[in-house]
Amino acid sequence: MATQTAPARPGDNSRIEVARARREADEPTSPVVRFGPDQPFELDSGGRLDHLQVAYQTYGTLNAARSNAVVICHALTGDQHVANIHPVTGKPGWWLRMVGPGKPIDTDRYFVICANVLGGCMGTTGPASTNPANGEPWATDLPVVTIRDMVRAQVRVLDHLGIEMALAVIGGSMGGMQVLQWAASYPDRVFSAIPIACGARHSSQNIAFHEVGRQAVMADPDWRNGRYLAEGTSPRKGLAVARMAAHITYMSDKALHAKFGRRLQDREKPTFGFDADFQIESYLRHQGVTFVERFDANSYLYVTRAMDYFDLAADYGGVLANAWRNSATRFCVVSFTSDWLFPTEESRTIVQSLAASNAPVSFVEIETTGGHDAFLLDEPELYGTISGFLGAAARARGAAT
Amino acid sequence: MATQTAPARPGDNSRIEVARARREADEPTSPVVRFGPDQPFELDSGGRLDHLQVAYQTYGTLNAARSNAVVICHALTGDQHVANIHPVTGKPGWWLRMVGPGKPIDTDRYFVICANVLGGCMGTTGPASTNPANGEPWATDLPVVTIRDMVRAQVRVLDHLGIEMALAVIGGSMGGMQVLQWAASYPDRVFSAIPIACGARHSSQNIAFHEVGRQAVMADPDWRNGRYLAEGTSPRKGLAVARMAAHITYMSDKALHAKFGRRLQDREKPTFGFDADFQIESYLRHQGVTFVERFDANSYLYVTRAMDYFDLAADYGGVLANAWRNSATRFCVVSFTSDWLFPTEESRTIVQSLAASNAPVSFVEIETTGGHDAFLLDEPELYGTISGFLGAAARARGAAT
Repeated sequence: MATQTAPARPGDNSRIEVARARREADEPTSPVVRFGPDQPFELDSGGRLDHLQVAYQTYGTLNAARSNAVVICHALTGDQHVANIHPVTGKPGWWLRMVGPGKPIDTDRYFVICANVLGGCMGTTGPASTNPANGEPWATDLPVVTIRDMVRAQVRVLDHLGIEMALAVIGGSMGGMQVLQWAASYPDRVFSAIPIACGARHSSQNIAFHEVGRQAVMADPDWRNGRYLAEGTSPRKGLAVARMAAHITYMSDKALHAKFGRRLQDREKPTFGFDADFQIESYLRHQGVTFVERFDANSYLYVTRAMDYFDLAADYGGVLANAWRNSATRFCVVSFTSDWLFPTEESRTIVQSLAASNAPVSFVEIETTGGHDAFLLDEPELYGTISGFLGAAARARGAAT
Repeated sequence: MATQTAPARPGDNSRIEVARARREADEPTSPVVRFGPDQPFELDSGGRLDHLQVAYQTYGTLNAARSNAVVICHALTGDQHVANIHPVTGKPGWWLRMVGPGKPIDTDRYFVICANVLGGCMGTTGPASTNPANGEPWATDLPVVTIRDMVRAQVRVLDHLGIEMALAVIGGSMGGMQVLQWAASYPDRVFSAIPIACGARHSSQNIAFHEVGRQAVMADPDWRNGRYLAEGTSPRKGLAVARMAAHITYMSDKALHAKFGRRLQDREKPTFGFDADFQIESYLRHQGVTFVERFDANSYLYVTRAMDYFDLAADYGGVLANAWRNSATRFCVVSFTSDWLFPTEESRTIVQSLAASNAPVSFVEIETTGGHDAFLLDEPELYGTISGFLGAAARARGAAT
C-alpha cells in the first residue's frame, strides 16, 4: 500500500483536548492537597474514596489570628479560579468584580479560599481524574457525590491550612447550597454565612432542567457510556445542548428581551432557514461551544446530580429550622427579583427557618433584571450588601485589619 | 460462511416506523385536499409549492347558511385529530374536553374544522411528505414555512368546503398565533377570533428554547442532515431531548411541585446514580419517548421555526394595532396566570392593540396553576368563557341552531 500524506483528522483535536483535560484533572494549575488510604473519605452514598485530592486557590493573606478567612463556594460550572486568569480559557476569573484588592471581598483585608468541588474537573477528584485502582479515568465508576460531600472535602482544605473557623462562607446558586450545608454541618466553623440566589432544596422544575441536560449528554454517541476520555472522544454536541438549555434558565425573560429581543444576527432579513438568524441563537450556540472547551461532560452529570439530591430539611427530620438549632452563625441571605430558577420565595423559606431558630439573619432581595446569574453581574447593591455584612462580621469577630 | 439465525435488529423497528411515517404523511387517515401546479402555493420565504396537500378533520354538520363553522388551529405538536381516536397513538383526541356534543365547542351546534398545519407530519405537506420532484421525502429541501403560510393553507380548505366566513377561529399557543394571523389577513372571513395563551410575536426566550430543541435534534447523528427517512434512521434521542426541554416550559413551577415535588419513583431512597430516581425525571423521559413515536423530527424543526419567525406587528409597520384596522371581527383573548411561556403580558399587548383599533374585544385572564398547557387541561373557567363567547357570536350572526 502506498504511503499517503495524512490529511488533518478530526480526531487529532480531540486527543489534544483529552490530554489537557486529564492533565488539569490530575495535575492542576492550582495548589492541591492529597489524601491517601490512611485518611479514607466516606461519601453520603455509602461509597468511599481511598484517594482524594482537592485543588484550591487562595488570595490575600491569612492574619496571625487565622480569623480573616473567607471561603467561596463556586457554582455548577464555576471553579476555584475566582480572581485569576483561568488556566484553560485564558480569561479573567469568574468573580473578579467581587474579589480583589479594594473589592467587596477585599483581599487586602481577607484571606480568600476557593476549592474546586468534589466531582469537578479542575483538579479536585472527579470523573475525569485518574482512578488509582486501574490508571484509567474514573468516568462513571466514581461514586455519585452530594453537596455535603463537597463541603466535607472543603473542610479538609481548611484543616490543611490550619483554619479553625471561617470568618464567612459565601456562594451563589450551588455555591449557596454549599454555604447552607456548611452552616448546618459545621456551625462552629462558620462565623457568618452568605447564601446567594439559592434554595434549601432543588425544586422539581430544577431537577427537570438538569435531567434534560444529562439526557442530552448521554444521548451523544461520543459519550461512550461515560468512557469517552479513555476512548479519545468527547460528547461535545450533547454537552453544548445541555449548556444552552441551562443558560436560558440563568437569565431573565426581560434581560433576554433587552439584550437580544428579536434582532437578527449580521443580516437585514431572515434567511428562512435553520442558521442562527436571531442574535439569541448565535449567542446560545456560542455559550454551548465555549463551555465544551473548558468543562468535562461527566463532571456536568455528577455536579448536576449533587444539586438534585440537595434537600437540607430532609436531613433534619423534614424541618429546616432544625438545621440551625444552637447555631451562632450570622446569616445574610440574598435573592434577586428576576431569578426564576431560585425565586425569592426559596430564600424566604430559608430566612423563615432561621428566624424560627432565633439565628441572626439579614435578608436582602435585590431588584434586578439580571436573573439567576445576577450574582456574577455588575450589581452595585450586591457589592454594598456583601462589603457591609463582611465588614460588620470582621469587626464583631475582632478580625478587622 | 455458515448460516446463522439472525438476531432481532434494532434497524427493523426503525424501518416499520419509517414506512408508517411516510404513509401518514402522504396518505393520511383524514380527508385531504390536494392542489397541483395549476394552483401553485406561494410562500412567505419566496419559495413556491407546485404540489400542496392539506389534511383535515371535521366534526358536526355545516348548516344551510354555512354560517356555523368553527376553525380550530392546533399547537406545535398537535394535529387535526382534535376529537377522534388518533390514528398513530390510538389515544383520544387532544381537545376532547372542549369539542364534542354538548361540549363548549358543541358539535351539535357548530361545524368544526381542524387542518394539520403546513410543515406538519399528519398529512399536510411537510418535510416527511414525498417531494414529487424526486419521489424522496422533502426533508430539509422543503422551503421554510411561516404562520401566515399555515393560515393560507387553511384558507384553501375553507374554500374547498365552500365556507366564506368562519363563525370563529380558535386556538391555543401556536394555534393562537394562527388565530391572530387569520384575523389580520382575512378580517372578512373571521366573524370572531379566540386566541388563547399566545403572543403577537415569539419572544427572545421562546426562540432560545426552540433553538435548544432544534440543536438537540440536529446533534443526533441519526438525523443524517435531515435525510433520516430516506436512510432508514430516526433521530429519536435528539427529538426526545427536545421534547423534554419544551415540556418543562409548558408547565408551571407550582404545578410541577404539586404533581411531583421531590418524590422518588418506585423507590424509598435515592440510588445515588443517573437512573430516573425522581418522579419528574421518569415523567419527562416518558414524554420524550412517546413523543418520538408520533412526531417527525424535521416537522419539529419546521414548525418551531415558523413560530420563531412570527412577529405580526413587524408586518404592519411595527404597529400591532394596524393589523386590525377596519376589522369587524370580535375578539376574545384568553391567558393563564401561571403561563410563563406566553405570560399574560403578551395577551395584554394584543388586547391593547385591539382597543387602539376600536375592535370589539373581551379579555379573560384565568387563575390556574396549569401553566401554558392549561388550554389542554380541565379548566372550567375556560369552558365557560369559550361556550359563552361562541354562543353570543352565533346569536349575533344569526347562526344559532
